[in-house]
Amino acid sequence: MTRPDGRACDQLRPVTLTRRWSIHPEGSVLVEFGDTRVLCTASVTEGVPRWRKGSGLGWVTAEYAMLPRATTTRSDRESVRGKVGGRTHEISRLIGRALRACVDLKALGENSIVLDCDVLQADGGTRTAAITGAYVALHDAVTHLADRKLLKGGVDKALPRSVSAVSVGVIDGQARLDLCYLEDVRAEVDMNIICTDAGDFVEVQGTGEDGVFNRDQLNALLDLGLAGCASLTAAQRAVLEATA
Amino acid sequence: MTRPDGRACDQLRPVTLTRRWSIHPEGSVLVEFGDTRVLCTASVTEGVPRWRKGSGLGWVTAEYAMLPRATTTRSDRESVRGKVGGRTHEISRLIGRALRACVDLKALGENSIVLDCDVLQADGGTRTAAITGAYVALHDAVTHLADRKLLKGGVDKALPRSVSAVSVGVIDGQARLDLCYLEDVRAEVDMNIICTDAGDFVEVQGTGEDGVFNRDQLNALLDLGLAGCASLTAAQRAVLEATA
Amino acid sequence: MTRPDGRACDQLRPVTLTRRWSIHPEGSVLVEFGDTRVLCTASVTEGVPRWRKGSGLGWVTAEYAMLPRATTTRSDRESVRGKVGGRTHEISRLIGRALRACVDLKALGENSIVLDCDVLQADGGTRTAAITGAYVALHDAVTHLADRKLLKGGVDKALPRSVSAVSVGVIDGQARLDLCYLEDVRAEVDMNIICTDAGDFVEVQGTGEDGVFNRDQLNALLDLGLAGCASLTAAQRAVLEATA
Amino acid sequence: MTRPDGRACDQLRPVTLTRRWSIHPEGSVLVEFGDTRVLCTASVTEGVPRWRKGSGLGWVTAEYAMLPRATTTRSDRESVRGKVGGRTHEISRLIGRALRACVDLKALGENSIVLDCDVLQADGGTRTAAITGAYVALHDAVTHLADRKLLKGGVDKALPRSVSAVSVGVIDGQARLDLCYLEDVRAEVDMNIICTDAGDFVEVQGTGEDGVFNRDQLNALLDLGLAGCASLTAAQRAVLEATA
Amino acid sequence: MTRPDGRACDQLRPVTLTRRWSIHPEGSVLVEFGDTRVLCTASVTEGVPRWRKGSGLGWVTAEYAMLPRATTTRSDRESVRGKVGGRTHEISRLIGRALRACVDLKALGENSIVLDCDVLQADGGTRTAAITGAYVALHDAVTHLADRKLLKGGVDKALPRSVSAVSVGVIDGQARLDLCYLEDVRAEVDMNIICTDAGDFVEVQGTGEDGVFNRDQLNALLDLGLAGCASLTAAQRAVLEATA
Amino acid sequence: MTRPDGRACDQLRPVTLTRRWSIHPEGSVLVEFGDTRVLCTASVTEGVPRWRKGSGLGWVTAEYAMLPRATTTRSDRESVRGKVGGRTHEISRLIGRALRACVDLKALGENSIVLDCDVLQADGGTRTAAITGAYVALHDAVTHLADRKLLKGGVDKALPRSVSAVSVGVIDGQARLDLCYLEDVRAEVDMNIICTDAGDFVEVQGTGEDGVFNRDQLNALLDLGLAGCASLTAAQRAVLEATA
Repeated sequence: MTRPDGRACDQLRPVTLTRRWSIHPEGSVLVEFGDTRVLCTASVTEGVPRWRKGSGLGWVTAEYAMLPRATTTRSDRESVRGKVGGRTHEISRLIGRALRACVDLKALGENSIVLDCDVLQADGGTRTAAITGAYVALHDAVTHLADRKLLKGGVDKALPRSVSAVSVGVIDGQARLDLCYLEDVRAEVDMNIICTDAGDFVEVQGTGEDGVFNRDQLNALLDLGLAGCASLTAAQRAVLEATA
Repeated sequence: MTRPDGRACDQLRPVTLTRRWSIHPEGSVLVEFGDTRVLCTASVTEGVPRWRKGSGLGWVTAEYAMLPRATTTRSDRESVRGKVGGRTHEISRLIGRALRACVDLKALGENSIVLDCDVLQADGGTRTAAITGAYVALHDAVTHLADRKLLKGGVDKALPRSVSAVSVGVIDGQARLDLCYLEDVRAEVDMNIICTDAGDFVEVQGTGEDGVFNRDQLNALLDLGLAGCASLTAAQRAVLEATA
Repeated sequence: MTRPDGRACDQLRPVTLTRRWSIHPEGSVLVEFGDTRVLCTASVTEGVPRWRKGSGLGWVTAEYAMLPRATTTRSDRESVRGKVGGRTHEISRLIGRALRACVDLKALGENSIVLDCDVLQADGGTRTAAITGAYVALHDAVTHLADRKLLKGGVDKALPRSVSAVSVGVIDGQARLDLCYLEDVRAEVDMNIICTDAGDFVEVQGTGEDGVFNRDQLNALLDLGLAGCASLTAAQRAVLEATA
Repeated sequence: MTRPDGRACDQLRPVTLTRRWSIHPEGSVLVEFGDTRVLCTASVTEGVPRWRKGSGLGWVTAEYAMLPRATTTRSDRESVRGKVGGRTHEISRLIGRALRACVDLKALGENSIVLDCDVLQADGGTRTAAITGAYVALHDAVTHLADRKLLKGGVDKALPRSVSAVSVGVIDGQARLDLCYLEDVRAEVDMNIICTDAGDFVEVQGTGEDGVFNRDQLNALLDLGLAGCASLTAAQRAVLEATA
Repeated sequence: MTRPDGRACDQLRPVTLTRRWSIHPEGSVLVEFGDTRVLCTASVTEGVPRWRKGSGLGWVTAEYAMLPRATTTRSDRESVRGKVGGRTHEISRLIGRALRACVDLKALGENSIVLDCDVLQADGGTRTAAITGAYVALHDAVTHLADRKLLKGGVDKALPRSVSAVSVGVIDGQARLDLCYLEDVRAEVDMNIICTDAGDFVEVQGTGEDGVFNRDQLNALLDLGLAGCASLTAAQRAVLEATA
Repeated sequence: MTRPDGRACDQLRPVTLTRRWSIHPEGSVLVEFGDTRVLCTASVTEGVPRWRKGSGLGWVTAEYAMLPRATTTRSDRESVRGKVGGRTHEISRLIGRALRACVDLKALGENSIVLDCDVLQADGGTRTAAITGAYVALHDAVTHLADRKLLKGGVDKALPRSVSAVSVGVIDGQARLDLCYLEDVRAEVDMNIICTDAGDFVEVQGTGEDGVFNRDQLNALLDLGLAGCASLTAAQRAVLEATA
């Protein structure tokens, strides 16, 4: 019952957050959870979509996508197929909700931030890596607004909490943290946990992929996920402080 | 702190399952959770999609949609917009996973069942009503296959468990069961719980719509949801026995 | 040469108009012509599309669609296929023209009404049932506008006539009223007749599905259709008076 | 009450059928009804679509479209908008039904013919011109099949009748034949009549564009249309004989 | 090594420019290069797209398309497929760039011209015929603007140069001018040359379809193309002067 | 008249080819021309598309795309817009043609290679960087096929030549090599040159963006481009030899 890469059950893969990977966006991070590699960019626009004008509230949204050969076999491009698939839609919405949870839209004012999370290489946990990386890009984008005097309060007012995410799952009856692809496809239960730096939940999504799960299993997975998110929060803080 | 319709916090809305509402489908149920009204049909095809042929496994999938004026204001049709929206995709996938969780695809053999859940009238909880109704339609569709000797084992082998679903949420700090629309839009936390007749979880999706939630709140919501699902399971059993 | 359901050649199927079937729309009717079941809703918006602003004229339009399993075998959803099919387009346009024929757009003022006709169950004659039901929903929607003082004249000024529709056809050389599906697929000639309460024609569409037709046959079909529409007009009047 | 171009009420515009206008298609006709100019081509393929294989029956279908500047103001291309509009769908289906009415699909054998009707210049009556021209192109395509010994019987067996079409309408209370655009937009009643060479009806579509019509008006329009179709049938016969 | 139609290597096919082929557009030309036949129309609108308003600059754009049976075998319509293909996009963009090269957008003022180039019959060189014909249609459209006093300067200020185009290629090692389809499919090198009346290049696109090409071959092709464009320029001038 | 980054007119930007940047594809290169950064992957499939089966020939195709924030301002995703844009289509086709020019499709046998070129960061010259990088990825993909004994001849037979590409242009009357974005938008003439290792042309595309160009200018640009491609060919060879 060892893991494919020999990790302990409660151990994350090596996590790297390369801040300012791109020159154009107001915030950008190349996040790596092991071999999973996601480019997260934050694009700032002054103003909000028409239906929100005059509300005094900002707008934060996210789009997730995968390069065609991010995976072991090539997938057709959604642009070529002419439509966004269900999985892509679902994950984009999840990332958007997660990141909005750490923003005070009133303090953001009528400014818009789009978070683009493009998976360059996939090995499980792409949506949780995306959320974890996007938070850092979002922080830089909010700082960009603050630097240009476009926020009423400061960065801390607009971003009162941080958010990170990790996958957990049950494989062969064993609860494990941060599943790689080989584990993901075999998992009996698969759960994504999104937490704040205070250890509160933002979102919990647990699915019995190949069966069902009971309250004890749920609790064990929540414990693992909370610990994993705490480590990720520390990594986010480190990179934001290091290159401030 | 009373609910809009005067219910107790742990009380479901009136639930109606009108079996065989339609004449054409192999299974059909008009499910009502209060004013929420969803037509669930199960369509059987012998054979499976090409990519699954020869696997010996069946296929169960679901599609969810809303009539344009199921809601208080009219929405454009997705057919006219030329694409399925993110919310629709996300809910269709959720219903499909939920219903596959109660099917033994091997015992189903190479047969396909499509579950169509069309919301005729919406007042919150459409996805959970859809899952609860679709299970009954699925049961009739599997019985249809059994009657035609298209299953190796019996209905119980192909459908080893039942599934039902309910929404729970926190409004003004209070945990409540089966939110109607007025509650849904105000909920601080919103959770959908999908359970089997044995009280195991199939899926748990909790979101802090307007904030975050802690472990205690999560536990209170799970308790409410489990109790709600038990009542729905009883209603499903009653309608399946009554008109067998 | 008896009909599948034993009706006389000049006999309608049982017609039911369940008014206010839905709680949200300004007008709603579940119309049944035998086993054909169409939910017609009328949605009111103050104002008109941009290209019509300042004209002083209202706007009435219609959209027709079928649930995927309204029919004996399941059809793919048009939203999933990404486009509206030719048959759907053609029928939506027919319903729109028919209903606009009973509206005085000037008396309606700059208000818009969308008529959604969703076939929940199909057994022939869905477009004629839709028109017949939609008129009642439209009447309630116009009354809604009048009640809110949004019409210059009254309801009768904005709706100077009523409209109803029925199919007629030739099967085995015999002219028949209100074809069910089994008759529809075998018809040599198929005609849809749309009339006002005064017995004038709004639209006549006759097609030799499997051959051609002569002037005598055309006249026999018109006679049948006019009589059928007169009965439907009476049913519409009854339901509008009964629950006024 | 004179017509814009001074014609008598029962007079067609000058009709030209330029056969073999194009070099590639098996049949091609540039049809002109006054300033209305439609290029009709017939494309032959051996074999039929998959769903029809083994039926022994042929397949005839039609597609209608307009060049963007066929009209007084430019319209966007349907290819650029990414979808076929309702009007286009409706007319394509009408043309297809009309042309299938003159084909014996059994005698055609498992061969397919696509009729493309592209409006190069529009001045009213494009759909009726298209049908009238497409019949001549279809005749040449069927002759092409016969010449290659791909028909069991001869051309006359596969094409037992001819078909032509004309519009009629009521303007200022006056019934008129073959409306040009200026008349079409002002017509109180608009009707398209499709007839065989024997004077039988294939399709009759009458619409009260800006009002309703009674039985007498209907009869007057049918009389005009039948006479117009007889002239068009003669023109078709002439061009087919002239260049045989 | 004779050409399919017996032409000399440096000889154009017969070129016809039928000006004012259509009655509705502000400019229209049916251009023929041998059997290649393209209808070019120029549609004028006062004003420019929203993103260009207030710039003082005009807008010229082009759309290219082929009728489904312009070619030896029928192609599906792009409107039916729901998307514009890559080849169509590429040629539309090429034509647009070419025609913008002969317009002074400032002198055009805030007016828009759309050039539609629809291939009615294809036999090689459709894009170069389209450019050559579109220039004449553009000239008439600009004259239309000048006649209505919508230009600050005259026609010559807004159209300071003319543009024409021709294909050249290498077949069996031999450089040839104005390839027909049979030559086009066999060409080792294929080049499109777009020139002004002064003999300057607007665009040069050379491709080694089935191999590569060296500097000497490139030079030989450029010489041929320049001479061909000079002849086409003369033909354009002739038709513009003849019917001025 | 110095360049934005101080380069000489005939100087390339720093070029980096990071081979095997991704773990999944059979070939992958992160190519950098200064700040332009394109991820090129080559995906191998045994077999060819249906229409090519039995031909004995392989298939090589390319798709180009840009991440939404690869540029200074964010662009909407083509997947979200539901269609591939004209520019994307045009560049994908260019890359495909360029790479097919260095493949012997017969020696490749019935195998398919898809080249995906995704622009992670754009600063001018993305299409030429993509071609230059894709060649290296293609070489690794062909080697992968050879290693698995799926080629009849060796790698050199299937890839008889290499291909590289560079942009050149005229800015302020001065011919320059490898334009960055700031130069690209100001260029009077813009040309892309694609060459083999032998210095032959594969494709030449020159456009007078804001004017026209004469033969002398064309020749000066060709000279610059040939020299640039020779340097890029050397860089490709170095990286292929270094890590062979």
